Amino acid sequence: DKIFTFIRHNQMINQKIVLITSGGTTVPLESRTVRYIDNFSIGTRGSTSAEYFLGLGYAVVFLHRRGSLQPYNRNFQHKNFLELFTTNDADDGDVKIKSEFKGLLGMCFAKYHLHVENKTLLNVEFTTLSDYLYLLKVTSEFLNECMESAMLYLAAAVSDFYIPFVDMPQHKIQSSSGPLHLSLQIVPKFLKPLTSKILPRAFVVSFKLETDPSLLLQKCHKALDTYNHQVVIGNILENRKREVVVVTKDSE
Amino acid sequence: DKIFTFIRHNQMINQKIVLITSGGTTVPLESRTVRYIDNFSIGTRGSTSAEYFLGLGYAVVFLHRRGSLQPYNRNFQHKNFLELFTTNDADDGDVKIKSEFKGLLGMCFAKYHLHVENKTLLNVEFTTLSDYLYLLKVTSEFLNECMESAMLYLAAAVSDFYIPFVDMPQHKIQSSSGPLHLSLQIVPKFLKPLTSKILPRAFVVSFKLETDPSLLLQKCHKALDTYNHQVVIGNILENRKREVVVVTKDSE
Repeated sequence: DKIFTFIRHNQMINQKIVLITSGGTTVPLESRTVRYIDNFSIGTRGSTSAEYFLGLGYAVVFLHRRGSLQPYNRNFQHKNFLELFTTNDADDGDVKIKSEFKGLLGMCFAKYHLHVENKTLLNVEFTTLSDYLYLLKVTSEFLNECMESAMLYLAAAVSDFYIPFVDMPQHKIQSSSGPLHLSLQIVPKFLKPLTSKILPRAFVVSFKLETDPSLLLQKCHKALDTYNHQVVIGNILENRKREVVVVTKDSE
Repeated sequence: DKIFTFIRHNQMINQKIVLITSGGTTVPLESRTVRYIDNFSIGTRGSTSAEYFLGLGYAVVFLHRRGSLQPYNRNFQHKNFLELFTTNDADDGDVKIKSEFKGLLGMCFAKYHLHVENKTLLNVEFTTLSDYLYLLKVTSEFLNECMESAMLYLAAAVSDFYIPFVDMPQHKIQSSSGPLHLSLQIVPKFLKPLTSKILPRAFVVSFKLETDPSLLLQKCHKALDTYNHQVVIGNILENRKREVVVVTKDSE
């Protein structure tokens, strides 16, 4: 499929390649899904990082939550896109970029199309946790062919809890039956098989998000010990856009 | 504020006016919110209906979930908007609409800007259940001034369950502490005060979504009896885009 073709193309020309995951995964609460648990991530870090990696000459597989921020559209996604344009001078029913957005949007537009045409950027979408895990696994298997030129940059906010399919109510939960009690199971850790079996030679960067600063460092070190990969970047919800801690094997 | 100004303007010129709600509300699971419960609604019905109301000469307050479909952008929101355009012939860093989208997007663009400039369309955003309830209440209070020219069209998918603020954990729930048990309370019904006190003379249309066909009709009739409003439109998740049941006071 298109992921395989993209990776194979970049492998043939010896391009460094990074799989970036971004945005949050959902877990359904009902098997004919009306409701689900989500998290606040909109993909700021993943989409911004993707632009940096592209600037550094990497090919990027951008595995992101449907509708979350993507490289080069991230500055404009919060707006109704119809607001970015105005009627053009020819008045032929076509549009032009509003003057206040011209510089940034024109540049983003050009870079986006350049990277897509050069096959250095591939956007792939997920929504649910199971979509995400499936796509992460198959992409990692393809990437393993690239050996040391492959990087994994796991910025997605992956659900920690889910309701197993057998425990799910089939129909919409009725509010007339009183308060709702939910029991969620812990999602099996997928990073262990990824770093030890599927992609053992890649450079792997994972992220930890906490709200309690007293837990952060210890959780970063624990992740590095457990998964034996290269870098954990830890951040606290409130100041995550200004400050991170970077924990590497050498710093242990 | 802008909602008041918009409604007052349309009231002065005796414009019929409808408040359309659209998209899903979220309920946080943690007070420093990382996780929340959401529902699948992306606002197809609300945004499509808004275009019909605008076509019929109504002024529309479109109260929608941030990022969900809006009138005139709804056919394009699922795409990265950078994909809708190509470089223009002048090659001056500006863009033009790709030929395959030219007809529909050009028309939507023109209609959107016409309605915004004519003050017949106002987009207002919510995310959480409490944002939604607050905005619905204040907008309805303004609308009550319009007497019988006001309509309420409640297409949003509002959460049925929430976690009261006092019951919420402050910090991110830790997956190391084992399976997660959540207890959610039923959201108080807001339609009763709306139809009986806040907006007693407006024409009110509400919606019911179920997954079990055997419950639908009875739940529609029950809603009409309870809230004593004008119309309930019932639909089943699987075929909601092709078929609805319409229950009115006369049909009781």
